[in-house]
Amino acid sequence: MSTQLTIIKIGGNVIDNPDALKRFLTAFAGLPGDKILIHGGGKVATQVAEKLGVQTTMVDGRRITDRPMLDVVTMVYGGLVNKQLVAQLQALGVNAIGLTGADAGTVLARKRPVKEIDYGFVGDVVEVDSGQILYFLRQGLTPVYAPLTYDEAGNILNTNADTMASTIAVDMAGRATVSLVYCFEKKGVLANPDDDDSVIGQLSPELYAEHKAAGTINKGMIPKLDNAFNALDKGVSRVVICHADEVAAAVTGAGAGTTLRLPTPA
Amino acid sequence: MSTQLTIIKIGGNVIDNPDALKRFLTAFAGLPGDKILIHGGGKVATQVAEKLGVQTTMVDGRRITDRPMLDVVTMVYGGLVNKQLVAQLQALGVNAIGLTGADAGTVLARKRPVKEIDYGFVGDVVEVDSGQILYFLRQGLTPVYAPLTYDEAGNILNTNADTMASTIAVDMAGRATVSLVYCFEKKGVLANPDDDDSVIGQLSPELYAEHKAAGTINKGMIPKLDNAFNALDKGVSRVVICHADEVAAAVTGAGAGTTLRLPTPA
Repeated sequence: MSTQLTIIKIGGNVIDNPDALKRFLTAFAGLPGDKILIHGGGKVATQVAEKLGVQTTMVDGRRITDRPMLDVVTMVYGGLVNKQLVAQLQALGVNAIGLTGADAGTVLARKRPVKEIDYGFVGDVVEVDSGQILYFLRQGLTPVYAPLTYDEAGNILNTNADTMASTIAVDMAGRATVSLVYCFEKKGVLANPDDDDSVIGQLSPELYAEHKAAGTINKGMIPKLDNAFNALDKGVSRVVICHADEVAAAVTGAGAGTTLRLPTPA
Repeated sequence: MSTQLTIIKIGGNVIDNPDALKRFLTAFAGLPGDKILIHGGGKVATQVAEKLGVQTTMVDGRRITDRPMLDVVTMVYGGLVNKQLVAQLQALGVNAIGLTGADAGTVLARKRPVKEIDYGFVGDVVEVDSGQILYFLRQGLTPVYAPLTYDEAGNILNTNADTMASTIAVDMAGRATVSLVYCFEKKGVLANPDDDDSVIGQLSPELYAEHKAAGTINKGMIPKLDNAFNALDKGVSRVVICHADEVAAAVTGAGAGTTLRLPTPA
């Protein structure tokens, strides 16, 4: 088996747009070597929740997951989105297998302790069974993860998809050379939030700190980049943030998006 | 690996009752050897459909699956029910993996052709990848199937859980000694529909024909028994129909429920 593994995370905005999703899945199907897809939820969860009379509460971009909302995300992420992705990938010749962390016990988590905020049924990852994931890859299967985990008490837990991607990437880095690609709706990390073409080609921790201080990198990009730098720091070989339409170029190293760099040696 | 395989189908009535489900899952976790669970949907799909404004139409006990209903069953069967079962089994020490037919390409189907009735996105099974399912079993995994399949065009399809159970059982019979157990809300096939204790211990095709002619076996029991006899006819070693609470006795051969018999030799 190849020791190269590409882990790709796609966000809700791609899932919400059937044409963009079709383009992405076709590109994903064409990527060489072993790969894992991790998907977010998209607006469908919020729409389904609304129709079911379940209120959506967000705190700092994170969904508060009470019991009714847990049922909604289990349905929408684990069922609707995940299975549609799997069936579409099968039609594109990819032998996909849809998973949550509970399936084959691959991503065990713990319900987040209540401090200032009670996030509800939200899971922080405790352990990834990278050996089992490797087994799937060796069988020619392509894992497609919904952002759901489980705990030892038998609960499904809602887990942030960016975090799930970086955690799996870090664990798999002990067994393969891992590239981690975050696909989203921009062409990369922007030096000027108002200019979609101001992509930062290479982002070091130093440059990241400067942009944070200047406020050019802010809000939702900060947890995403913290996750991404953490993965690089813990053994992932390459981390790229790019537009979903540029995933092929990002994976082949043709230079799309923003590539993260380790600190410059002193 | 053991050449014994137990395939168990549980119906919606067990899924709808948390206490009954807990009892069943505990018994299932205690069953020896390789096993596969196939579950129905329960009333949740109908309830969710109603809240989402999706109308439920049944013809001869089968759900008509238009596009909005397909989304509902994909959410409820493939997401909510399947993942809750998997997480609960993990907590009971069973390394469960939740699957639809699309996952790992294990149960390929074809959209049912429109004749008198347009069933919509309903799939008739074309092929089971029993080799892949055996791989999962050899890894110590317990497949938990939602009653969903897929077609070559990338559609998820709704498939009757009884049929899915018998089709998988028949295909696995080429690779293992298969017992197929249908769990439902009665103690077995009844000789008198008004007497819950009138369980027919052994049911041959001849006796089945007599009961059908007399009308004591009717309605929903007929497709269930047709599926079950078909499995026995095609190589499944043992088929039992029993109450979910008696699954352990049915599997160990202690005599619960109704055991199907092949035709008496002439």
